Amino acid sequence: MFPKNTWYVAAMPDEIDAKPLGRKICGERIVFFRGPGGAATALEDWCPHRGAPLSLGRVVEGNLVCGYHGLAMGCDGKTVSMPGQRVRGFPPVRSFPVVERHGFVWVWPGEPALADASKLPELAWSNDPEWAYGGGLYHIGCDYRLMIDNLMDLTHETYVHSTSIGQPEIDETPCKTTVEGDMAITSRFMNGISAPPFWRTALRAHGLPDDQPVDRWQICRFTPPSHVMIEVGVALAGRGGYEAPRQDKVYSIVVDFITPETESSIWYFWGMARNFRADDKALTAQIREGQGKIFAEDMEMLERQQQNLLQWPERELLKLNIDTGGVQARKILDRVIAAERSTVAA
Amino acid sequence: MFPKNTWYVAAMPDEIDAKPLGRKICGERIVFFRGPGGAATALEDWCPHRGAPLSLGRVVEGNLVCGYHGLAMGCDGKTVSMPGQRVRGFPPVRSFPVVERHGFVWVWPGEPALADASKLPELAWSNDPEWAYGGGLYHIGCDYRLMIDNLMDLTHETYVHSTSIGQPEIDETPCKTTVEGDMAITSRFMNGISAPPFWRTALRAHGLPDDQPVDRWQICRFTPPSHVMIEVGVALAGRGGYEAPRQDKVYSIVVDFITPETESSIWYFWGMARNFRADDKALTAQIREGQGKIFAEDMEMLERQQQNLLQWPERELLKLNIDTGGVQARKILDRVIAAERSTVAA
Amino acid sequence: MFPKNTWYVAAMPDEIDAKPLGRKICGERIVFFRGPGGAATALEDWCPHRGAPLSLGRVVEGNLVCGYHGLAMGCDGKTVSMPGQRVRGFPPVRSFPVVERHGFVWVWPGEPALADASKLPELAWSNDPEWAYGGGLYHIGCDYRLMIDNLMDLTHETYVHSTSIGQPEIDETPCKTTVEGDMAITSRFMNGISAPPFWRTALRAHGLPDDQPVDRWQICRFTPPSHVMIEVGVALAGRGGYEAPRQDKVYSIVVDFITPETESSIWYFWGMARNFRADDKALTAQIREGQGKIFAEDMEMLERQQQNLLQWPERELLKLNIDTGGVQARKILDRVIAAERSTVAA
Repeated sequence: MFPKNTWYVAAMPDEIDAKPLGRKICGERIVFFRGPGGAATALEDWCPHRGAPLSLGRVVEGNLVCGYHGLAMGCDGKTVSMPGQRVRGFPPVRSFPVVERHGFVWVWPGEPALADASKLPELAWSNDPEWAYGGGLYHIGCDYRLMIDNLMDLTHETYVHSTSIGQPEIDETPCKTTVEGDMAITSRFMNGISAPPFWRTALRAHGLPDDQPVDRWQICRFTPPSHVMIEVGVALAGRGGYEAPRQDKVYSIVVDFITPETESSIWYFWGMARNFRADDKALTAQIREGQGKIFAEDMEMLERQQQNLLQWPERELLKLNIDTGGVQARKILDRVIAAERSTVAA
Repeated sequence: MFPKNTWYVAAMPDEIDAKPLGRKICGERIVFFRGPGGAATALEDWCPHRGAPLSLGRVVEGNLVCGYHGLAMGCDGKTVSMPGQRVRGFPPVRSFPVVERHGFVWVWPGEPALADASKLPELAWSNDPEWAYGGGLYHIGCDYRLMIDNLMDLTHETYVHSTSIGQPEIDETPCKTTVEGDMAITSRFMNGISAPPFWRTALRAHGLPDDQPVDRWQICRFTPPSHVMIEVGVALAGRGGYEAPRQDKVYSIVVDFITPETESSIWYFWGMARNFRADDKALTAQIREGQGKIFAEDMEMLERQQQNLLQWPERELLKLNIDTGGVQARKILDRVIAAERSTVAA
Repeated sequence: MFPKNTWYVAAMPDEIDAKPLGRKICGERIVFFRGPGGAATALEDWCPHRGAPLSLGRVVEGNLVCGYHGLAMGCDGKTVSMPGQRVRGFPPVRSFPVVERHGFVWVWPGEPALADASKLPELAWSNDPEWAYGGGLYHIGCDYRLMIDNLMDLTHETYVHSTSIGQPEIDETPCKTTVEGDMAITSRFMNGISAPPFWRTALRAHGLPDDQPVDRWQICRFTPPSHVMIEVGVALAGRGGYEAPRQDKVYSIVVDFITPETESSIWYFWGMARNFRADDKALTAQIREGQGKIFAEDMEMLERQQQNLLQWPERELLKLNIDTGGVQARKILDRVIAAERSTVAA
C-alpha cells in the first residue's frame, strides 16, 4: 500500500544515458529513456504492435525503436512510424510524467493530470557547489515501510553496523520525535562521546583530531511518500554541538529515497551529501564505497524481517519510543493514501 | 492451448542413445528410451511401484529398469518383472506412440488410437544424400505461438539479428501471405540488394563472389501443429532469383519444430538443411554454431514478451500485414484444436 | 502430516556453538542457541519488538540479543532487557523444549507441557567408549515418509547404490517384517555371498580377508516419529552370521533421524555407529565421507519421486512384500498422529 500520485526517484541519470531502462515502479512496468534533446521520458514498457518490452529497443533520433519489429514510439506514447505501416490508428501506450532534477530521474506513477513538478522536494545541497553527493542503488525484498522504520530508528546502528557507525551511546540516548505537518522528525544528541570509526575517518579528512570526545547528532526527517533525509555529524566536544562553528565539526546528510517496486520489494536509492572538500572526487568515491558496505548490512535483516511478517501476518509489532518516528511516518502515509483514494473516488 | 492429437518432435535421436530421457511435452511427463532393437519408446515417467520417475533408470535388454527398486517396465507400459515379485496385477502406465523419422524422435501426446504415422510431415531433404542437416535445441519460456509468430514475420531480423542476417531491406519489402489448406505461407523477395554477413559467408563457401548485388528470398511455410520450414537463399542478381540455376545461388531450409512443454514454455528444435557441400561436416558444424548464436538472440525477447502478455492478458495485439503469417497460423491452429475437441466430445 | 508432540533431532551440537541457528522444523521457525551454562535453547525465531529473526542476533551472557535493535531475549521466551526500555509488558515468544543428548540437539515442536525427556530414544552406542559415531546432515525436498520408505526397503541399494553397498542378492533375498508395539522391523539375511565394495573395505579395516564368502545382514528398526536404526554387517561365511563371534564379523548401525521441515522437505541426519577401532578418527572421517557419497545418491530419486507424487496426487502406490516395512511404519505413524489429535481435541 503506497501512494501513487506522488513523485518517486526512478533512476540515476546515467542509468538511462546509454540505452533504455526497464524498471517496475509501484507495480507499473515502465521504460525510461532519453527523448529529443536528451529529456528523460517514461512510458509503459509495452510495444502496441505485439507486446514486446520497449526497453529491449534503442533510441533513434529521440524516439524509442522497438527491438522486435522496429515500431518507433514517440515520447508521448504515440507511435511515430513503423517500416511499411500506417501507424495513425495504433493504440497509444501510457506515458508517465518525468522530471530530472537534483541529480535524479523522478517519475509520477499515478494520475498524470495531477503531476506537479512544484511538488518535488527541495534539496538545497543538490545545486550548491559547496556540496558534493555520492550514492548508489540497492534492490531489497521488503515493504518500503520497513525501510522507513529502519531509517527513523537509528538505534539499529549499534547492532547492525557495530563496526562502522554503531556505538552503545546511540541506544542509550533517548531520541525525540516531533511531527510538523507532513514531516516526521526524530532527533538524538549524544554529547562527550568517542567518535566511531566512520566519523574518526571523517574528522581526519576534515583536518580535525580523531581521538578527542565529540558531540554527535542524528536528525532524521521523513516526508512522504518515502524520503528520509538524515542530518548527521560530530563536533569537537563543547564547541556547541550541532550549532558549533563550521571549522569545529564534520557533518553531512544521509539521503534515502525508497521507491516501491511491488508491495514487498523496493528500489533503495541511498547516498550522502557533504559540504566539506566538495571537489575531492576521490573522497566522494571513498565515502560512497564505505556507505555502500554499511547499508548492505541492512539488507538481510530487512528481507528476513519481511519473511517473518509474511509468516505471521496477524501479529502486532511493538511501538516503543524509539519506533515513534516510523509510527508517525506511517500515520502520515495512511493520511496521504486515504486522501489519494478519496480524490480518485470523487 | 495446443493440439494433442498430433506429432511433435520430442528429441534428437542421440539424446536417448545412452540413457533414458525424461521430458515434459504438452504437459505430460514422459520418459523416452530405446526398447528392443533400439526402437524409440515413450512411456509415462512414473513407476507403478512407488511413483519414482522411470527416467532415472536404465535400459536392460530392451526393458526400462526402474532405478529405485528394479521394476522392469516393458515398452507397452506393462511391468515385465521385478525381483521376487509376481507382477501380473501391476497397473500399466500410459504408453505414447513414437516414431523415429527424418532424424528426429516424434511423439503423439494425445489419444493413442488416433496416432497415424502417415500423418508425419514429409521432409524431402532428410533422406537425400545431397542434403546435410545440423541443428540444436533450446528451452524457452514462451507460448509456442509466440515462436510461430516470430518465424512467420521475418521483419524482426532487421532488429533482433541486425549483425548477422538482418538488413533494412527486409522490413522495407512487403511480404505476401497465402493459405493453402492447412498451410500458411509468407514470402518475401528482395532483388538487387547487398548480402548480409551470413549470406556473404555462404556465398564464399559456395565459391561465389560475396561483394555483388544479390536477389534474396524468404519463404516461410507453417503447418500444424507448429512446424515452420523457411526456404532462404540468395542468387547473384539478375540470374533468376529463386529460380536461378543452381550454380548461381546459395540456399537452404531453416527448420523449426516447436514443441510445447507447458502453456508457456517450449522445446525449440532449430536447424538448417542445405544442399551444397553436404559432405562437409566442418561446414555443418560452423553453420550450426552461427545459427545457434543468431537464434539465441530471440530468446530474451520472446521470454519478456511472454511476461508482458501475462501482465496484461486483456490487451489485444495488432495484426498488421507483416503479422498475417502468424495470424493465419493461429486460425489454422484454432480450427485444428476445435476439430480435436469435437472429436473427443463425439 | 507428522506428529508434533514428540522429539526430533534439530541440530548437531556444533551447529549452535558459535552463533544462533535459525531452522524451520515441522513448519515452525525456530532459533537454537546456547543459553546460560551452554544449555541448548529453542525459541520462536521472532523478535517481539519488530518481528526480526532472532537468529540474526548473538548470544550475550546467555541471552539472545536481537541483531536489529538489541532486545535481549531470555531462554524462557521472555524479554530480559532492551536499552532504554521497560520490557515487563513485552509479549513473550514461544519456547520449545530442548534436550541435548546422544550427541544431538533434540526439540519438541508440539505442546510443551507434554514434553518428557524420558521419551527420548535410547541409543546404547552413543555413550559407550567402544563405539564411535560419525555423520552428517542433508536437506532434501521430500515428504519425510518417503525417506522412511527408502530406509525400510533396502532393495533399493541394488539399484541406487550399485557401486558401493548394492548387490543383486539383496533384492533376490526375501525380507521379513514384524511389528513390536510401535516398532516396525524389517530384516534380511544373505548367506554365502561375496561382499560388496563397502564391506570389503570394512573387512580389511578389521583385519579380515575381503575375498571370501560372507553372511550379510540388514535389520531395519523404525520407531516414531521417524527414526530408523539399521543394524548392518557381514561375517565370514559359516561362522554364525549375525550371531558370529565378534572377531569374525564387522558390523555397525546406520543411524537415520528424519526431521520434517515442511510437508515436503526434511532435515536428514544420517550417520554410522561402529564398535571396531572406535578411537581411529581417520577411519571415522573416511567412513563418514564414503557414507555421505552413498546417501547423496538417494537425494535426486527422492526429490523427483516427490514431484511425481505431487503431479499425480490421486494415484495409489503398490504395497509389495518389500514395502511392508514402510507400510507398517506409516500405520504406526497414522496411529500416533490420530492419538495426538484426540489428545489435543480432548
